[in-house]
Amino acid sequence: MGENGIGVRRVRDFGVVIGTMTPGVRNAITDVGGVTVGHCLLDEPEKGVHTGVTVVSPAAGSLFRDKITAAVSVFNGFGKSAGLMQIEEKGTIETPIVLTGVSSVGLLYDALFRLEMEKNADICRSSGSVNPVICECNDSFLNDASASRLGREHLDAALCSASADFEEGAVGAGRGMSCFGLKGGIGSASRVFEAAGRKFTVGVLVNANFGETSCLTIAGRHIGPSLAELLTKAYSSLERGSVIIVVATDAPMDSRQLKRLCKRTFIGVGRTGSFIGDGSGDVAVAFSTACRVPHASPDGGLVHRETLHEDHIDHFFKATAESTEEAVLNALIASDPLVGRDGNERRSLKEFLPKILMN
Amino acid sequence: MGENGIGVRRVRDFGVVIGTMTPGVRNAITDVGGVTVGHCLLDEPEKGVHTGVTVVSPAAGSLFRDKITAAVSVFNGFGKSAGLMQIEEKGTIETPIVLTGVSSVGLLYDALFRLEMEKNADICRSSGSVNPVICECNDSFLNDASASRLGREHLDAALCSASADFEEGAVGAGRGMSCFGLKGGIGSASRVFEAAGRKFTVGVLVNANFGETSCLTIAGRHIGPSLAELLTKAYSSLERGSVIIVVATDAPMDSRQLKRLCKRTFIGVGRTGSFIGDGSGDVAVAFSTACRVPHASPDGGLVHRETLHEDHIDHFFKATAESTEEAVLNALIASDPLVGRDGNERRSLKEFLPKILMN
Amino acid sequence: MGENGIGVRRVRDFGVVIGTMTPGVRNAITDVGGVTVGHCLLDEPEKGVHTGVTVVSPAAGSLFRDKITAAVSVFNGFGKSAGLMQIEEKGTIETPIVLTGVSSVGLLYDALFRLEMEKNADICRSSGSVNPVICECNDSFLNDASASRLGREHLDAALCSASADFEEGAVGAGRGMSCFGLKGGIGSASRVFEAAGRKFTVGVLVNANFGETSCLTIAGRHIGPSLAELLTKAYSSLERGSVIIVVATDAPMDSRQLKRLCKRTFIGVGRTGSFIGDGSGDVAVAFSTACRVPHASPDGGLVHRETLHEDHIDHFFKATAESTEEAVLNALIASDPLVGRDGNERRSLKEFLPKILMN
Amino acid sequence: MGENGIGVRRVRDFGVVIGTMTPGVRNAITDVGGVTVGHCLLDEPEKGVHTGVTVVSPAAGSLFRDKITAAVSVFNGFGKSAGLMQIEEKGTIETPIVLTGVSSVGLLYDALFRLEMEKNADICRSSGSVNPVICECNDSFLNDASASRLGREHLDAALCSASADFEEGAVGAGRGMSCFGLKGGIGSASRVFEAAGRKFTVGVLVNANFGETSCLTIAGRHIGPSLAELLTKAYSSLERGSVIIVVATDAPMDSRQLKRLCKRTFIGVGRTGSFIGDGSGDVAVAFSTACRVPHASPDGGLVHRETLHEDHIDHFFKATAESTEEAVLNALIASDPLVGRDGNERRSLKEFLPKILMN
Repeated sequence: MGENGIGVRRVRDFGVVIGTMTPGVRNAITDVGGVTVGHCLLDEPEKGVHTGVTVVSPAAGSLFRDKITAAVSVFNGFGKSAGLMQIEEKGTIETPIVLTGVSSVGLLYDALFRLEMEKNADICRSSGSVNPVICECNDSFLNDASASRLGREHLDAALCSASADFEEGAVGAGRGMSCFGLKGGIGSASRVFEAAGRKFTVGVLVNANFGETSCLTIAGRHIGPSLAELLTKAYSSLERGSVIIVVATDAPMDSRQLKRLCKRTFIGVGRTGSFIGDGSGDVAVAFSTACRVPHASPDGGLVHRETLHEDHIDHFFKATAESTEEAVLNALIASDPLVGRDGNERRSLKEFLPKILMN
Repeated sequence: MGENGIGVRRVRDFGVVIGTMTPGVRNAITDVGGVTVGHCLLDEPEKGVHTGVTVVSPAAGSLFRDKITAAVSVFNGFGKSAGLMQIEEKGTIETPIVLTGVSSVGLLYDALFRLEMEKNADICRSSGSVNPVICECNDSFLNDASASRLGREHLDAALCSASADFEEGAVGAGRGMSCFGLKGGIGSASRVFEAAGRKFTVGVLVNANFGETSCLTIAGRHIGPSLAELLTKAYSSLERGSVIIVVATDAPMDSRQLKRLCKRTFIGVGRTGSFIGDGSGDVAVAFSTACRVPHASPDGGLVHRETLHEDHIDHFFKATAESTEEAVLNALIASDPLVGRDGNERRSLKEFLPKILMN
Repeated sequence: MGENGIGVRRVRDFGVVIGTMTPGVRNAITDVGGVTVGHCLLDEPEKGVHTGVTVVSPAAGSLFRDKITAAVSVFNGFGKSAGLMQIEEKGTIETPIVLTGVSSVGLLYDALFRLEMEKNADICRSSGSVNPVICECNDSFLNDASASRLGREHLDAALCSASADFEEGAVGAGRGMSCFGLKGGIGSASRVFEAAGRKFTVGVLVNANFGETSCLTIAGRHIGPSLAELLTKAYSSLERGSVIIVVATDAPMDSRQLKRLCKRTFIGVGRTGSFIGDGSGDVAVAFSTACRVPHASPDGGLVHRETLHEDHIDHFFKATAESTEEAVLNALIASDPLVGRDGNERRSLKEFLPKILMN
Repeated sequence: MGENGIGVRRVRDFGVVIGTMTPGVRNAITDVGGVTVGHCLLDEPEKGVHTGVTVVSPAAGSLFRDKITAAVSVFNGFGKSAGLMQIEEKGTIETPIVLTGVSSVGLLYDALFRLEMEKNADICRSSGSVNPVICECNDSFLNDASASRLGREHLDAALCSASADFEEGAVGAGRGMSCFGLKGGIGSASRVFEAAGRKFTVGVLVNANFGETSCLTIAGRHIGPSLAELLTKAYSSLERGSVIIVVATDAPMDSRQLKRLCKRTFIGVGRTGSFIGDGSGDVAVAFSTACRVPHASPDGGLVHRETLHEDHIDHFFKATAESTEEAVLNALIASDPLVGRDGNERRSLKEFLPKILMN
């Protein structure tokens, strides 16, 4: 790896190991079988526009016909995410999870709503409506919110590009994000482990847009103060922004259990140095690919399913906390520096980390 | 039936029908197979003591070894019930549900805790602890709280007497309760119905201790003002007290679904005239006898279960609302008048209802 | 009034009185000083489009600069409302409350977001973002969701028309709504009363889009079955749809207290016959016009305020329950019949009520 | 300090500094003026009894007459604490906060209830009831739950001993606690800081009874694995037990704000290495000494108060997270080793820390 971290994409490339559990093959949310991630950028530097959209698709096939068991947890609700209320009530998601910046929530909500109506002719006709899930972070430090307009074409492009292999960093919804006064964005990590004699996977994807520089902590090492000295440009002194955390697992869990996973993501966020600031929208969404709920009732009216006995759930809690912590650090490392609207600038952690780790 | 309602025990005996669904054989919570209810009174008139304990046992056998899927909902948390937090977290109950008055929460908690330790030698030794569920209403208008001391012997007696056939009214935990300025207490009702080609039952038991006289409404008829004129003794002018509502069903439901049932109980409470006053502890606990969760993990770590598809859940919501409304009215009708501590007195609705219904 | 209720706009015109408290001058949410309501319709019958937008503005002046103390409560979260999470976290609202149909959530969210950015140049520049509040009900039985596109011009028109005097019924967001198998829409009511020697007002506005015909209950009278016989067209047999309930008060209350008001709205909804069905988004938002919170901290960092002592809050609970019940009935009475997309039709309650009340 | 840490009572004595903010004079919850803490032990080694009670009193004078603004947050509800529901509903506490072990919840609840009745003759007579707050952790690894019976005399003794100066470690409710496989118990810490030109204090007290050995992390240093090698006795391999966290501040905050403080305690817990295990009752209670609410309504019905503008709340969040982390470590350092029931043993962190820190 070069001095400036060129070519380096992940925190493990610096020898930093988070926790004690074993990552999956990709060390990404897509280690959970069937999960795919896609991005679409909108970069118009002359207008100060640096934003985008990221989609996390829990499974192939129609999510509306065969819903995915899911849950949410909100640690701090200063945020604009849409669609969480129905996940809480019904314990399912029925669309891909769309991540984006503050200025595109409405238009992407509309785009996803209309896309689902096109794909499912019964929506708002012979059947009920559909619940688009749009998860927001405020990217307006780098991105001109008044000038940016993501819409259907960007959503379609992100969905088309969705794959088990995907980029991290200043891509998709992560394009304009800031984290600990550095460039933030999309990061991911995973853990595989045995529980009750079976192998399970937990994967996490974050859109990291939170934290004040002086607080940054890497694997327990409080590097914030050193980093603050190295950063020559002004950086935000307040804990601001948000983090969206998506958790996937292949273990059969009901929504109550998934909500418990959601909560452990915040332990991971806290270990990176955040105290979850007032102005932060810290939202976790978790889903299990092992539990589908059909839109229409089967004959007999009952859905058969398996559920993890909770004697084994501590493995999942630990995997979730570790994966979230590592995903945030991966977001920081993977993100290249960016000069955004009005000359606002965010540098990349990888420019500084080698020097800091040497001390 | 006599003019004073002697011998009359239920609101249907007055020709009053609540809702449109069909009650079960007993029109009681024990229409759900396996559920039993027991009472024990503590009446020491010379001390102004009129209190008691009621137990609702969801099933035969060890609830600690094979836990019952359950949920709670708190509409207004001015109350002292214990054990709800763990039901919310784990989605199960592992003891009978104990109802009692305000002065016995602590001692009955201790009694139930020690009883379970005796029955399960591993509790607080090789295994974790046990979560006693004690649901409280304030009976101190009729009962001298400082003088009343329910304990282990009363709990044991209530458990011993538990049966599918049980009394309503000023019995057990209902002994000292007031409701709409009248004598309140224990009431029950049930509904049986078909959903998805199968027959299901919802049963409700309440300990009714809420409501101001002028608000009482029976099957939509606002009789409160007439009743207020007939009541010659002073009655509480404020909405005070509490109501505990226990919902049982034989349908396979997870804790998220049962929580949704819990919420519909308050619709039934509202229809009796309550607006759920500030000083009221309005708490619902629901359980499904069809979903057991073993204390120890089975081999393989998974619990197999069925869950109702929610296309059919509206039947259960309606049954819950209707049963709760009727259970409150049954509590009022079944309760005989009582003169309690310091001469405080509550009359029985059945003394007045014939005259009111004639108008 | 004519046989078909022509010219009749409110349930009190039929002699129906809800509860015992006294309405305000308008018997509407705008009896709370400073509150205004505006509507804009989008009617394109040839396309099956019958939808609109309604705005409730809590106060004059900039809501962003001087936020309004507020709270939310979700009884059943099958709905798509946006902006609730931040109200819950911060206890304030900073935009007008926008009500609309299922197909316009995204576009109106975007419109309101951009409008606020235009009015407040610091949003997403030197300050944080803004939280648009969009409350949704599914109007797709009468309105073609795929063809309807409300946007900025409709929002602007609704805001421009906002006034203390406003229409009820099939106007604005209520345009395409159904309620108990009849035409639903916007309704309002209020109560004025004395507490602690001072006069206070509670006002409620609903967008009523819920309930199955056979359940409709008016002032305790269960007219659903009679109504069902009179309705010659097929009507929805399921409890579907949603209800949005906005509560305003001039009493100084903090967000915890306002959340308690929110919950009492559902008691009023339940008394109209709803058991709050599975597919319903039942959402209440409450605000106090007496408690403003400045966007920027004052010197010294403290906000001085008064708060109602809760010994007096039962008056507000009762007023909220009564007003909600009456507002739903006013929505039913005020709504003229409508034939919508694909010939789907909803009749008006006022066509049937005279005949039913005569029996 | 000696090699075995004899005489050493706090983590700062080892040169370990948590966070960047300044502790108060005592570095304890009692740096918040008016707060006092008292303990009472029950040690009967021949019976395997090692338990006790700790009281945190928020202020002098009658808490029932002048209630304290408060809030709770439950991260994981596997626990038996009583009284939380009413704090959530009413936003106040009206008794001291009592901490204890698993076997004494009921009897101490009863003792506190009767004590308050004695002190306030109107309770359950002319006024409503009182809400005892009992916060539980499971101490049954060291303490024989079936043999231990704390009651009124222990509560009285703890209250009598309450003082701004108090001991930490295996005292009071901390007597039988375990933490990271070591001896746990009571710990405290505080932060003082300026916000909006005024000086404020946040203080935290924990009863630490959670964590698996291999996870222990001190100021970011993951010492768990080294510690596990040094511990020759078997230690619990699972994350079990609980932590109760009490937060005090002298800043004027309403219950919504205090609930936000509560949540940040869990960030501090997470930084000590916990992922908040399945079997843990992780409960935070926060109160403000600056906001009293009178039991009886004042004339005019309004309570005047100040509230912190939330632009300044991040200081409090950070102070809460830091104080909680340090309080847990202080609990570990202050706790002397103990051999409990059936020879179960917990060593003290201070026996191992010098050696570990040297490496």
